[in-house]
Amino acid sequence: MWGGRFSARPSDIMQAINASIGFDQKLAAEDIAGSKAHATMLAKQGILSDADRDAILSGLDAILAEIEAGEFPFSEELEDIHLNVEARLKDRIGEAGGRLHTGRSRNDQVATDFRLWTRKSLDLFDHLLTDLMTALLDQAEAHADTIMPGFTHLQSAQPVTFGHHMLAYLEMFARDRSRMRDCRVRMNESPLGAAALAGTPYPIDRDMTAEALGFDRPMANSLDAVSARDFALEALAAASICATHLSRLAEEIVIWTSAQFRFIALSDAFTTGSSIMPQKRNPDAAELVRAKVGRIMGSLTALMIVMKGLPLAYSKDMQEDKEPVFEAFESLELALRAMAGMVRDMAPNEARLAEAAGAGFSTATDIADWLVMHLNKPFRDAHHVTGRIVALAEEKGLTLDGLALSDMQAVEPGITDEIFSVLSPLASATSRMSYGGTAPDRVREQVKRWRSQLT
Amino acid sequence: MWGGRFSARPSDIMQAINASIGFDQKLAAEDIAGSKAHATMLAKQGILSDADRDAILSGLDAILAEIEAGEFPFSEELEDIHLNVEARLKDRIGEAGGRLHTGRSRNDQVATDFRLWTRKSLDLFDHLLTDLMTALLDQAEAHADTIMPGFTHLQSAQPVTFGHHMLAYLEMFARDRSRMRDCRVRMNESPLGAAALAGTPYPIDRDMTAEALGFDRPMANSLDAVSARDFALEALAAASICATHLSRLAEEIVIWTSAQFRFIALSDAFTTGSSIMPQKRNPDAAELVRAKVGRIMGSLTALMIVMKGLPLAYSKDMQEDKEPVFEAFESLELALRAMAGMVRDMAPNEARLAEAAGAGFSTATDIADWLVMHLNKPFRDAHHVTGRIVALAEEKGLTLDGLALSDMQAVEPGITDEIFSVLSPLASATSRMSYGGTAPDRVREQVKRWRSQLT
Amino acid sequence: MWGGRFSARPSDIMQAINASIGFDQKLAAEDIAGSKAHATMLAKQGILSDADRDAILSGLDAILAEIEAGEFPFSEELEDIHLNVEARLKDRIGEAGGRLHTGRSRNDQVATDFRLWTRKSLDLFDHLLTDLMTALLDQAEAHADTIMPGFTHLQSAQPVTFGHHMLAYLEMFARDRSRMRDCRVRMNESPLGAAALAGTPYPIDRDMTAEALGFDRPMANSLDAVSARDFALEALAAASICATHLSRLAEEIVIWTSAQFRFIALSDAFTTGSSIMPQKRNPDAAELVRAKVGRIMGSLTALMIVMKGLPLAYSKDMQEDKEPVFEAFESLELALRAMAGMVRDMAPNEARLAEAAGAGFSTATDIADWLVMHLNKPFRDAHHVTGRIVALAEEKGLTLDGLALSDMQAVEPGITDEIFSVLSPLASATSRMSYGGTAPDRVREQVKRWRSQLT
Amino acid sequence: MWGGRFSARPSDIMQAINASIGFDQKLAAEDIAGSKAHATMLAKQGILSDADRDAILSGLDAILAEIEAGEFPFSEELEDIHLNVEARLKDRIGEAGGRLHTGRSRNDQVATDFRLWTRKSLDLFDHLLTDLMTALLDQAEAHADTIMPGFTHLQSAQPVTFGHHMLAYLEMFARDRSRMRDCRVRMNESPLGAAALAGTPYPIDRDMTAEALGFDRPMANSLDAVSARDFALEALAAASICATHLSRLAEEIVIWTSAQFRFIALSDAFTTGSSIMPQKRNPDAAELVRAKVGRIMGSLTALMIVMKGLPLAYSKDMQEDKEPVFEAFESLELALRAMAGMVRDMAPNEARLAEAAGAGFSTATDIADWLVMHLNKPFRDAHHVTGRIVALAEEKGLTLDGLALSDMQAVEPGITDEIFSVLSPLASATSRMSYGGTAPDRVREQVKRWRSQLT
Repeated sequence: MWGGRFSARPSDIMQAINASIGFDQKLAAEDIAGSKAHATMLAKQGILSDADRDAILSGLDAILAEIEAGEFPFSEELEDIHLNVEARLKDRIGEAGGRLHTGRSRNDQVATDFRLWTRKSLDLFDHLLTDLMTALLDQAEAHADTIMPGFTHLQSAQPVTFGHHMLAYLEMFARDRSRMRDCRVRMNESPLGAAALAGTPYPIDRDMTAEALGFDRPMANSLDAVSARDFALEALAAASICATHLSRLAEEIVIWTSAQFRFIALSDAFTTGSSIMPQKRNPDAAELVRAKVGRIMGSLTALMIVMKGLPLAYSKDMQEDKEPVFEAFESLELALRAMAGMVRDMAPNEARLAEAAGAGFSTATDIADWLVMHLNKPFRDAHHVTGRIVALAEEKGLTLDGLALSDMQAVEPGITDEIFSVLSPLASATSRMSYGGTAPDRVREQVKRWRSQLT
Repeated sequence: MWGGRFSARPSDIMQAINASIGFDQKLAAEDIAGSKAHATMLAKQGILSDADRDAILSGLDAILAEIEAGEFPFSEELEDIHLNVEARLKDRIGEAGGRLHTGRSRNDQVATDFRLWTRKSLDLFDHLLTDLMTALLDQAEAHADTIMPGFTHLQSAQPVTFGHHMLAYLEMFARDRSRMRDCRVRMNESPLGAAALAGTPYPIDRDMTAEALGFDRPMANSLDAVSARDFALEALAAASICATHLSRLAEEIVIWTSAQFRFIALSDAFTTGSSIMPQKRNPDAAELVRAKVGRIMGSLTALMIVMKGLPLAYSKDMQEDKEPVFEAFESLELALRAMAGMVRDMAPNEARLAEAAGAGFSTATDIADWLVMHLNKPFRDAHHVTGRIVALAEEKGLTLDGLALSDMQAVEPGITDEIFSVLSPLASATSRMSYGGTAPDRVREQVKRWRSQLT
Repeated sequence: MWGGRFSARPSDIMQAINASIGFDQKLAAEDIAGSKAHATMLAKQGILSDADRDAILSGLDAILAEIEAGEFPFSEELEDIHLNVEARLKDRIGEAGGRLHTGRSRNDQVATDFRLWTRKSLDLFDHLLTDLMTALLDQAEAHADTIMPGFTHLQSAQPVTFGHHMLAYLEMFARDRSRMRDCRVRMNESPLGAAALAGTPYPIDRDMTAEALGFDRPMANSLDAVSARDFALEALAAASICATHLSRLAEEIVIWTSAQFRFIALSDAFTTGSSIMPQKRNPDAAELVRAKVGRIMGSLTALMIVMKGLPLAYSKDMQEDKEPVFEAFESLELALRAMAGMVRDMAPNEARLAEAAGAGFSTATDIADWLVMHLNKPFRDAHHVTGRIVALAEEKGLTLDGLALSDMQAVEPGITDEIFSVLSPLASATSRMSYGGTAPDRVREQVKRWRSQLT
Repeated sequence: MWGGRFSARPSDIMQAINASIGFDQKLAAEDIAGSKAHATMLAKQGILSDADRDAILSGLDAILAEIEAGEFPFSEELEDIHLNVEARLKDRIGEAGGRLHTGRSRNDQVATDFRLWTRKSLDLFDHLLTDLMTALLDQAEAHADTIMPGFTHLQSAQPVTFGHHMLAYLEMFARDRSRMRDCRVRMNESPLGAAALAGTPYPIDRDMTAEALGFDRPMANSLDAVSARDFALEALAAASICATHLSRLAEEIVIWTSAQFRFIALSDAFTTGSSIMPQKRNPDAAELVRAKVGRIMGSLTALMIVMKGLPLAYSKDMQEDKEPVFEAFESLELALRAMAGMVRDMAPNEARLAEAAGAGFSTATDIADWLVMHLNKPFRDAHHVTGRIVALAEEKGLTLDGLALSDMQAVEPGITDEIFSVLSPLASATSRMSYGGTAPDRVREQVKRWRSQLT
């Protein structure tokens, strides 16, 4: 396999640690697409005869068909997808198969395959994120007026709307999608033609192969072309950040479906039972989504460590680039699909949400703001006064709008009965009309903006 | 501090774990800038009197001066930079100071401060990366013709030029800079006015404060505004990827300055001695740069774990966002500065590089390519023939251009003495004229392209 | 500083990246202890005169006093704690100070200092974990009979006791303590006397210095002695695992103190308020403890990356070992203290816990078990029958013990009214008498076992 | 599958994300061993008839045979290995199969399986580490006298012996083995019988199943038993630390086999060629071993993130525990085997090592030590004088033992020609007789100690 110089064969363990065919066969379609682009270009440049090109192209098509049909005889001795395909091509078309590798090397070949595969994944994530955003948008639209408690520290802080909460996630996933797109733009350059590391003396046309494979341009430095893996790191980082957003929403779903919260319900389609406790409806899908951030971030860590301190150009360490990316992306795909399913499936319990929104003195801030706006108190003083009113209500076991006016006036004589107009959760939410605020009209405004962008 | 409702004081350990003033005082300038923008807007909207605004603005300026002079009495009891500044303001200007917090909360305030600080850092990295790229470009230009061995697996593979090697790093750092810029664009939105989490009933103008602080627009969802930290994660990810590139170049510097390589020399300005071995010239700066990827990636890991699974909107966990970012960015700044210094300082040992470039049968690929181009051999066969010629040379203890023509012909009768024209390292490198290849003219072409972009 | 061979001074950035005195001054006490042991041994071995030894010992004591008084003039130009102390010693006692460094190097010196510091931290964690375990044990004893819902998937699964739940964490922290102890045993070997990397020709007595510093023995290989950092990695790993346990308990505290759960209450000593919402009682300490796992695990990641691929013996990269450990250990110390405080502070709401324990058909498994034990049904069939009974109860809006016997018999005719004896949460918990089970007697048994071990 | 309460089926994506049979079939042997122990115990306790037990035991044996023969019909609809085996058992033996799950749950079942599997892996690592230590010991013995340069900062520092260098790694791997052993002791407790989370009302005998499965005792708290994964984290941490040691040795192998170093040679059994450069002998196995630390540390990160903040007892997130461990352990196994192979295969180039050991003024410290010992100079002064001698030698282009005595005396008049006795690399190494030092006799002493322990 490595030319005529090696006299002894590799040890078994060497072969076992060295072979990548067990996982890089996932790149078969990309490998063959790259080879077809390369062969076509070689022929156009007069480096390959048209007859050889035709034999190569049809041979590669036949091999792809074999692979797709599950009939390709993968061999660990042939190490990787590249040598497996090339050896099979030679079996099928003879000598012409040996001309395909002219003017390229496995180093630029694998870099090309891996970029193509990563690009395809980024496009898939773009699609899945758009779908998830649409699911959130639908819930936001349906629940622009549904009042729920807004939490900080998992303590009721101020009433918000369920639609507003959904839109917060829509914003996060929109940034995730934007990160994926930036990554795609940056990575969409072709390494093909960099050969082993230094370029090649053949009169190849790198623009032609770049275009054929949908790249924006060839990479400008051959050493960089074969040794760069920052595109994979960036894609993993974008995936990891997206996974933190998924984990946050998943955590909320787990908490919201608990018997103590009952803020939403999931149907049987997204819950599971127990082997011993028949009454359970477990939010397994949410828990699994929550966990995926581990796998994805672990993959980023893995590849970051692999790349640390590697001299140029290609080192075999880099063979450890693919499995982390494969696993992370498979995890992210599952998580995005499951989350979109859950978002569509979830049914907010409006009565329960409204009740919770009114508990816990959630409109206390509204009192403080009323004191500022109507009595011209400095906010800090208003805040202090409100604290004493809340303490009084708590002591008496009353809600804020259950307190008598006289009780409030005992704390602050300037208070009038107008204050009761701000003490309901709905009034509180509706008053928060600042841009980006939770007032139902503001929520609808954002729904409209997103609707026009997502369709 | 938290209104009139708390009867008991926090325990000592509570105060110790809770206080952030020990590190968030780094945000003082941003905090004051945010407060000034907020006060100015409140006055314009009629929420604050002009007199109060003026008192607040001059009070804040005086406080900033105090801080810059190191005379500000930071208090751990006042928890954080926000409360320290506000309390001081009240000391200085009285009641008006209590009006500043109208229509905002610490939640949007700290998000604003932290974004401003991160943005400033991204701008600094942009500048430092440009400086490092320029240093690499200067070396590339000076050494566009300097032949050195190109390595794969740290084994000599094919001759390249030192300039080409420098440009490979320039490309990497250019992508790092591009990542920082994308991050800056995406993060440059203002959280100010989101208040605690739901927006505010005051008629504030979020566009005005956004503009005053150099943001492109206000964030569109108040829950998202106070709970998002993906901007920090993205910045840390970009910093981590950049750090892997730095670590790779640093590794090469360590290896190249070893007695066995002697590919480059560093001056006394970037080497250190030993406390016990007086002859040592240690590439400490390169080693420290190599190590910084640990710190930076550790910070990304830290913040990713912190954010995992946090429900909306603000949780106190998020207070753990700042130290990882501060430390990572300080590390990256040091590493970028030190690397630019080393790149400018390094002196390639041309004689040694040329000698190494010629060793190790580094032009073997050129034989294979010659066989393809002149004898029309399939590349795979040419590769095999070359392997046997290399084995013969190794057996005889000769270099490839030291082998007799008859020896080569014994392996492949079609070889003529024309083959000697491709056997020198310089000929090899010069022949690699494909776009992005190592041929000196190609290197100069890229130098020119970058020169026009960097100046 | 590095002998007479360097003609030029380091660049400013070189000095900035190189200096460690900003953080390694934390090792001052350990550095001086190591130097005293070394000097004492040198004198005993005749390498140093008794007079020089005495001057050195009293000089070092004076320096330590200066440092503790905050009066030591630390200098960045002198790089690190070792050179700062040594230079100061020379200032104080003259030539004898220059004899202290005989037969050692900064490489073994810093390894010694860092081990001593880490060992001290491990001892502190042992103490703090014991304290936390005791706090948990006290709660377990007080609440061996307090019924609460046991959760899986945050869904009520089966009733357990609060004491049992506390003991689960006690077991985890006991293993954490055990890991710290194993780490301490393994790391407690002295690097001192390994010198730069190869040992020394002076007739030093490494056993003597090892014993003086409380080490079990000298390390057996000098290269290993100066280059090993696995002791720090192991300590960070043990700290990280401990932090996951802390984060789990912290998460429960956050959930349990929510208005929807109200399972426990924390006093003002461990909650904070809001700058804008006066009614809030936020479990900040729990949130901060939950977040610390990020910082600690980030430190482990950092040091792991630093160490990856470093050739023997000492590389300057290793200077990046200390800050991650310092920060992680400071975080763990705070988190352990805060958690012990919260465990002691928390008051379970027994009424609320009991009510929750009875909701959600939590004794469904008890029906299945009754069917197996009394009707000899295979468990899988019993499980299926129970599922149908639960569905019936849910449909009728009844609890399991609210269902009529006839309703149950409609599903399974063999059921008798004896079944009602297993349908209360208390009966359910009491029945789980298997070793390690939640039955109050079993809990008390474990309390007794732990009480005897912890006191 | 989950009793009779679920009316609708899970969505496809739910099933896809939920199913673990794709990877947990690796636990088949452990699952069946656990079930056999459980059934045997149930019968002894009178919970199961002897006939049912016998049917179950032989049914399980038959199923294991099917699995080992690759003939088991795994079903994704049946989710996991537990339900696949149980369903198959029911197919084979009917009703009795439904009695096996009495008194246990999948929660304790999977915890048991996973512990058994992890324990088996730890035992394997113990064996593989011992083998690697033996390989290092053999090289150390063979090369106790082989002089090579000892490096710090990859700069020649002082001469050491190759055997000493090998023993440094032996020490590291010995600590790794010790960590694996501590982990095994701590984790070797049985979760079986904890049932879902609370224990069980059946009169089971947990000591009996613990003993049957080779555990030291049953776990003492049922909640802890089903929710603890610190055993896996600890095993991953030990594996990660071990991997850093492997990566360090691998890095040295890569550097040592470079054309510039040529310190050792690897045979064809552990090198590979290039698809385009026929002369290459790439140390692929070493590079792959170096990279594995990424994968393993990535797995630790993954599981740590998964476990962060999970409330008790079992959450579905924990299903993400197995793949990281499987992959990390497979990686570590490969890396340990490959490294043992390489250590046995490597041939030190003694001439080249000796030459390198003498270059770079590597005996400068010996001059300083001579000045201390013979002229009673303070070490710091001796260090300074030596620096000037080295500078002189460098200026004259001479080695230290090539300098004339008069030249040295010009720097320090007290020097006599006795000094030449310490200037050879062999003399230098031989003089380092402190315990753990590099003197050949010290190396042989350690070889003897290890030989007696490893055989």
